[in-house]
Amino acid sequence: MNEHPPISVALVGASGYTGLELTRLLLNHPTAHLALMCAGRSAGEPADSVNPALKGLGLPPLVAFDADEIAAKCTYAFLGLPHKTAQDVTHELLERGVKVVDLSADHRFDDADFYAAVYEPHRHPENCAKTVYGCPELHREAIRNTRLVGAPGCYPTSVILGVAPALNGGLLAAAHAIADCKSGVSGAGRNPGPGTHFPETADGLHAYKTLNHRHAPEMERILGGGMQVEFVPHLVPMNRGILSTIYLRLKPGVDETAVRDVYQSQYGDEPFIALLESGAHPDPRHVRGTNRCHIGLFVKGDRLVVQSAIDNLGKGAAGQAIQCFNLMAGIAETSGLEGTAFFP
Amino acid sequence: MNEHPPISVALVGASGYTGLELTRLLLNHPTAHLALMCAGRSAGEPADSVNPALKGLGLPPLVAFDADEIAAKCTYAFLGLPHKTAQDVTHELLERGVKVVDLSADHRFDDADFYAAVYEPHRHPENCAKTVYGCPELHREAIRNTRLVGAPGCYPTSVILGVAPALNGGLLAAAHAIADCKSGVSGAGRNPGPGTHFPETADGLHAYKTLNHRHAPEMERILGGGMQVEFVPHLVPMNRGILSTIYLRLKPGVDETAVRDVYQSQYGDEPFIALLESGAHPDPRHVRGTNRCHIGLFVKGDRLVVQSAIDNLGKGAAGQAIQCFNLMAGIAETSGLEGTAFFP
Amino acid sequence: MNEHPPISVALVGASGYTGLELTRLLLNHPTAHLALMCAGRSAGEPADSVNPALKGLGLPPLVAFDADEIAAKCTYAFLGLPHKTAQDVTHELLERGVKVVDLSADHRFDDADFYAAVYEPHRHPENCAKTVYGCPELHREAIRNTRLVGAPGCYPTSVILGVAPALNGGLLAAAHAIADCKSGVSGAGRNPGPGTHFPETADGLHAYKTLNHRHAPEMERILGGGMQVEFVPHLVPMNRGILSTIYLRLKPGVDETAVRDVYQSQYGDEPFIALLESGAHPDPRHVRGTNRCHIGLFVKGDRLVVQSAIDNLGKGAAGQAIQCFNLMAGIAETSGLEGTAFFP
Amino acid sequence: MNEHPPISVALVGASGYTGLELTRLLLNHPTAHLALMCAGRSAGEPADSVNPALKGLGLPPLVAFDADEIAAKCTYAFLGLPHKTAQDVTHELLERGVKVVDLSADHRFDDADFYAAVYEPHRHPENCAKTVYGCPELHREAIRNTRLVGAPGCYPTSVILGVAPALNGGLLAAAHAIADCKSGVSGAGRNPGPGTHFPETADGLHAYKTLNHRHAPEMERILGGGMQVEFVPHLVPMNRGILSTIYLRLKPGVDETAVRDVYQSQYGDEPFIALLESGAHPDPRHVRGTNRCHIGLFVKGDRLVVQSAIDNLGKGAAGQAIQCFNLMAGIAETSGLEGTAFFP
Repeated sequence: MNEHPPISVALVGASGYTGLELTRLLLNHPTAHLALMCAGRSAGEPADSVNPALKGLGLPPLVAFDADEIAAKCTYAFLGLPHKTAQDVTHELLERGVKVVDLSADHRFDDADFYAAVYEPHRHPENCAKTVYGCPELHREAIRNTRLVGAPGCYPTSVILGVAPALNGGLLAAAHAIADCKSGVSGAGRNPGPGTHFPETADGLHAYKTLNHRHAPEMERILGGGMQVEFVPHLVPMNRGILSTIYLRLKPGVDETAVRDVYQSQYGDEPFIALLESGAHPDPRHVRGTNRCHIGLFVKGDRLVVQSAIDNLGKGAAGQAIQCFNLMAGIAETSGLEGTAFFP
Repeated sequence: MNEHPPISVALVGASGYTGLELTRLLLNHPTAHLALMCAGRSAGEPADSVNPALKGLGLPPLVAFDADEIAAKCTYAFLGLPHKTAQDVTHELLERGVKVVDLSADHRFDDADFYAAVYEPHRHPENCAKTVYGCPELHREAIRNTRLVGAPGCYPTSVILGVAPALNGGLLAAAHAIADCKSGVSGAGRNPGPGTHFPETADGLHAYKTLNHRHAPEMERILGGGMQVEFVPHLVPMNRGILSTIYLRLKPGVDETAVRDVYQSQYGDEPFIALLESGAHPDPRHVRGTNRCHIGLFVKGDRLVVQSAIDNLGKGAAGQAIQCFNLMAGIAETSGLEGTAFFP
Repeated sequence: MNEHPPISVALVGASGYTGLELTRLLLNHPTAHLALMCAGRSAGEPADSVNPALKGLGLPPLVAFDADEIAAKCTYAFLGLPHKTAQDVTHELLERGVKVVDLSADHRFDDADFYAAVYEPHRHPENCAKTVYGCPELHREAIRNTRLVGAPGCYPTSVILGVAPALNGGLLAAAHAIADCKSGVSGAGRNPGPGTHFPETADGLHAYKTLNHRHAPEMERILGGGMQVEFVPHLVPMNRGILSTIYLRLKPGVDETAVRDVYQSQYGDEPFIALLESGAHPDPRHVRGTNRCHIGLFVKGDRLVVQSAIDNLGKGAAGQAIQCFNLMAGIAETSGLEGTAFFP
Repeated sequence: MNEHPPISVALVGASGYTGLELTRLLLNHPTAHLALMCAGRSAGEPADSVNPALKGLGLPPLVAFDADEIAAKCTYAFLGLPHKTAQDVTHELLERGVKVVDLSADHRFDDADFYAAVYEPHRHPENCAKTVYGCPELHREAIRNTRLVGAPGCYPTSVILGVAPALNGGLLAAAHAIADCKSGVSGAGRNPGPGTHFPETADGLHAYKTLNHRHAPEMERILGGGMQVEFVPHLVPMNRGILSTIYLRLKPGVDETAVRDVYQSQYGDEPFIALLESGAHPDPRHVRGTNRCHIGLFVKGDRLVVQSAIDNLGKGAAGQAIQCFNLMAGIAETSGLEGTAFFP
């Protein structure tokens, strides 16, 4: 099963939460060999200085980013960098023939103008045309054939997976969704701030950027079909996980059976998606630490409520990035991602 | 300020979370005198046996419910009982002239048939006609003049307070709301079960009874105007608090200023409601332990998102019950409820 | 009961957690009138800008610290400031005749050399001689007669209250204690940092400054009798509360009855201390939001384990400061502190 | 590396937390094949009925325990059963030649009288003589050669690993330890009760069974040398993990270097133990989901404080059980346990 020869990969940005999860998954991957761990400010320090979980594992020290070194040693690079920074790094790596899975927001759009409208002008707009949005359930073949994947945002992953079958299956009365999403705090990154300070985060919750978050255009563009998403993200006192509760309207005559048939036909063969039985509610705790997505479907009259649970660092980031890598590398799509959820 | 002579009150059902919070508030009330604490299974035991927080306060022991004793000693009774049980107790007390604030679901509807449709046949349907729904912002005068208040459910309180101004102020394009509500675990009561076991509750969250919770008809009936509420409650890993995120559609031409004007005109004089400034998001932690409600308003095009934060045991239960008592007793509406939030 | 004329007080340092809790307690105090709230960086802003819980209460805006203004308007000042800063502020206020309750570490020692050894040289060493350590259970009379109180640290409060009766009652075989203390995260203050970032604080715990924390000399000095305290503080994923588990050795022949007699004799009349019955374990959740201390006593052979639970912001800070103020002002010692715990 | 032919194993008791973690680890094990999952009350139901994390994995349904079936299909059985129940099951399996790793308390003592003194009379006392205490760091060779392992308790694992080097290395002035242990709530098992109900567990903590917990004799017996352990367990609001803070006295002349030399010599080659550098504090979050133990050492004068962090379900239960199985089966000791910690 592990007969494929090792593929050396670099991790650029090893000290953020995305980098930590990529490290965990890559060290356990049967084919990928984590050859270089780059962390700018911590270059030269031991790997456990940014991640005490690595204590005693005998890993080599962190290094500074050096595109030539990566090109000399690695075939692929995963980028766990802030957006903007990822643009230059991607460019340097692509120029040297390294394939890139970028987990930042920088290569999620294949249109530089759209990127500029949502973020700011792209520093290497020519790379936008090269990128594939890394959602295997929608773009599996394109991912297999690209050299650059823009790994999806965590919120968009959960919403797109929840909505796409209904939209593409022609179930909806209108191309409109309300996405009320609840995220764990690791989604806010590793930099401490007032909004993630424990006593202001535990035992409470709140929305933020109501109707004004940059993940909404990402959802709308990737879903297509003129979809409008009314998106309100919430910060919930848990470490990991996203639960998206999505409110949709069904066409006349569409009942729960019809809904389930469509979801089953689109997801029945997907290795990482489970449709829960009627009445069952998904919970991110049951996909914690995995690349899986649990989907619950609720129909009452013409109302459809879809609930989609992922791990924001798993299917919402590092897990999905590795799923894309597996496709790009031509190895089993589930390699290194078979683990079951970390529950309790 | 405290010149009103003491009013003796009984608390029936002292051992549940609603009872604990009533105890806390009543012991601090300038006029109410907590003369009797009834707890069936713990009758004869010290008060701190069901609530260690009462250790060392010198309270009298818990007693069994005895309508005659209550009638002899008290003018009012607060009921922190399961629904059904509250029906008989209420009846016995009303017959003896004791005024009742019932925190169960049993007297929230002034129509016994409606109650039967949502719950089951009422054991004393004649009492339904006597009850007033205890939402002072909507029914202040009726509460002043009743002998029986049905204190609102925690979810309905947060949703009704969020929606009523928009509905009654004529802002809405349709009598329809989506209410995505997030509750702390104390809302599930004090009886332990799999769904409230710590390792199955912490570090995760889930919806329950999607589109099928009995608080939806309560919201719809009290709001009136043919309002339909698509209600999905969620259990969040926090002790207290409800945040309701409510999705509404505005009539053409209604902008944020118009929305704010309406809410300001309806709530400007309310002692327990604060409208947050534009862009600010309410969080139940900032009303924790109080009878307050913080409301945030977000408008984009014809979309209105209302966010309403309360303490499920405060404004959602015990606090509101005492606000009603204050009105019934003709004392200052804010008596015993002036405390600021317990934050952090 | 509230017949004492109002006493105007100032709060200097209104934006930290100690300041927030002082605000909550002072606004609810029957005699103290919170006349001025000072917050340097937020001067001129509304009070709810640093504490959203104050939204809608109609409080005056925050002001900059001005010793003359305070002297003109207030008899007392509470200082919720970082240590060092508190030294100058205290000095200016004392010079102007304002009585001070300093919640920083700056006036906990009546010996400037000792202070210098534990912290650094004091900027106004002459004030050390004027200060009284604000532990009413030990220093009630001195507090009544001082113009300057140094309110105890949160850890020392819990340990001193747990150990003092055993030490002073002659129960111990040696003047030695191991104090294994567990604190909520609000004890680390309101400034965010890596150590209080939610995902690095929730679902884990750790000790810090093992055998090397500056609260150990405070405990040892105040306890006296040559007491040595082996102190290890831990940070636990909760907002508030300290539980100290204290390990002591009993003199030969001392049994549980003798231990309980001594504690009862010393604490039986204390309004804020409750001794739990044999076998009962204290929990800070049952004193949350109060000035109370719950103490559990466990004896096996010559081993005595004392468990002491307080709210680090209550009896460990703001509550105890107000208890001292009540003594200084000659009003009922429990004024404004009667509230029962915020549980659940 | 995975060339060993598969070894079929049974899991008896698949629905408790120990069973869930065994499932997670065994499904990821390169050699063990999880052939049977037994769960008495859920026999016949799908595996995801007791563990929603298994949804969509295509596992066979749960079965009732049948010793013959296990003997026919499996070489080894892991028991995640309550104590007492495990005695009969073990007996039946041993009689049929199945090797057993029992995670209950039933086979932790090789002396039936000692077991009876701590628990109650053993139903199959002859099996006590056959058992090996499953702590590989102490009993590696014996584990390789036994047919029955009693997997250690979670608290004893963390304390024994922390104390053994100091005791066996002759560092201690006395055979006495104080073990102040803090456990996550999964350690209390999966049955809900008042003590694990979320609102009575979150935002607080407490000790239980002070000086009276059955893990103390286990620690003392396994450590040997007349060791006395003053043991106080605490329940902390986190899902997983144990941090043990252990207080010891050093012989005169033993300094930190000497302490570190001894621990290094005993643990330097251990695959799952990491000694942290001077001043660093272990935290269970950094070993979450693993079989690792992080140890911190703190010396001041003659005081030694050892801090030991494990995952109670990992090194404290399922992980260590698999480590024992690996030894019994003659495969690499780290098989299936290489994963790094689940952090954040």
